[in-house]
Amino acid sequence: MTYCVAMRLDAGLVFLSDSRTNAGVDHVGTTRKMTVYENPGERMLVLMTSGNLSISQSIKQIISERTNADGKNIWTANTMFEAAQIVGEAVRSVHERDTGAFEKFGIDFNVGIIFGGQIKGERCRLFQIYSAGNFIEVQDANPYFQIGEAKYGKPIIDRIISSKTPLDTAAKCALLSMNSTLRSNISVGMPLDLLVYGADELAITRFVSIDEKNQYYKDIVEDWATKMKEIFNSVADPEWSNGDAASNLIVEKDVGQSLVTTAPEAIATNIQAKPIQTLAQGINTEQS
Amino acid sequence: MTYCVAMRLDAGLVFLSDSRTNAGVDHVGTTRKMTVYENPGERMLVLMTSGNLSISQSIKQIISERTNADGKNIWTANTMFEAAQIVGEAVRSVHERDTGAFEKFGIDFNVGIIFGGQIKGERCRLFQIYSAGNFIEVQDANPYFQIGEAKYGKPIIDRIISSKTPLDTAAKCALLSMNSTLRSNISVGMPLDLLVYGADELAITRFVSIDEKNQYYKDIVEDWATKMKEIFNSVADPEWSNGDAASNLIVEKDVGQSLVTTAPEAIATNIQAKPIQTLAQGINTEQS
Repeated sequence: MTYCVAMRLDAGLVFLSDSRTNAGVDHVGTTRKMTVYENPGERMLVLMTSGNLSISQSIKQIISERTNADGKNIWTANTMFEAAQIVGEAVRSVHERDTGAFEKFGIDFNVGIIFGGQIKGERCRLFQIYSAGNFIEVQDANPYFQIGEAKYGKPIIDRIISSKTPLDTAAKCALLSMNSTLRSNISVGMPLDLLVYGADELAITRFVSIDEKNQYYKDIVEDWATKMKEIFNSVADPEWSNGDAASNLIVEKDVGQSLVTTAPEAIATNIQAKPIQTLAQGINTEQS
Repeated sequence: MTYCVAMRLDAGLVFLSDSRTNAGVDHVGTTRKMTVYENPGERMLVLMTSGNLSISQSIKQIISERTNADGKNIWTANTMFEAAQIVGEAVRSVHERDTGAFEKFGIDFNVGIIFGGQIKGERCRLFQIYSAGNFIEVQDANPYFQIGEAKYGKPIIDRIISSKTPLDTAAKCALLSMNSTLRSNISVGMPLDLLVYGADELAITRFVSIDEKNQYYKDIVEDWATKMKEIFNSVADPEWSNGDAASNLIVEKDVGQSLVTTAPEAIATNIQAKPIQTLAQGINTEQS
């Protein structure tokens, strides 16, 4: 799998991708999931892909080679919308070529794409492109897209990010979102590619590939982990009671049949009549 | 969907389930996903289910009615392992009955089960039971199970929970894990059923159904959200440089072809030769 996230903020764009690729757990490798199309001063476009690696690579090959029916390619598209169409057309072209063979082998045509950047004359734009080549554009109310293993790292983004978030703060959020994902899912792995783009720069100015030795990454994830534990401890534990004002959680009485099934009378009586010798000798397989 | 989590700690067990059920987004309802089988002083068993509601309900009906080929039922099983087998047999029984019809309609036989508790004479035990009726038992190294929408709420559990965690601290962690899930996924919803079981109590002593008005829940999620933002702000933002000692993140030079595709020379020259009038007039569809 993969985890990639991109954010479109008032101040620019943030892109972050992991590098784990695998075909089963016994074939694990590293591949870059971020590709930049740069014509400095005129356009800076970033493509991130998840899903079947053969599909992703074919799409990138087609994007870099072909000019479409309108005579446009990734370098001559007038707008990001046109450029996203070119990427969508590449997806459809690979689908047309591969889908017959895939069906014979029961393989899904599975690819996820985030595509964003800026072409001179437009503001920064960000798209999510689906396996069918159709796409949606990010909105300020929900200014990010994720592909791949998106769920682990979503809560932190939902808590922090709005379109007003400064670029480097958003980059930090993306890195912590990635860290939560890395900790909980081994199909996502280092190194991480981070690209932070300030609106109207029209070139790559801030890119870094972050591996296990990167001091900044090590520092923030350690700081975050320590502080998470501190605030977790500082949030009040429940204190149960049957209704005392001093406690914060009240035990529910009469929970009723929707929750509890009680033992049939014969069994309840039986159990209470003769102490449970058999049960006291119960086998605890768990401890073996 | 659903989100349920259970933890087996040295001090006992924690169970937490949401109540959202839906068949498409236009048929959303509330259903309890936790069922307790209680014979006070002798056994206290908790079953939580996710997946197809008709399967879950059938399983529960069978569990409460049937005695298996060994003459055992949920009330007479000598060990939690036997009780888990009885639940697994109920799953297989529903599968046998429904799977033919399901296949005709292209419906997956989809059910997830967490089953745990204590029978007098054994320690607390916790199982995850699959659609095929097979099951695994929790281990101290990784002392929790989740079913349903598990990913959003996993990072906080991975950061906090070990088998040494006190019961009420674990309950608080489960509630915050649920809160992260609720915020990020509308297929999970209130009220929440929380059951905290101290080892050897052999009865329900701490159960509460938490709705939107529960003051404790409101307090901790607000406190958590505020503190998360505070610590997020206190973690260092990246400061980019080309190598100054004062900064914490160094811009990578010579990123190379594995990342960047540059414009073909003809295009790059062309663009630089005549300032990009067409592009400067680009249509910004995003702002419409």
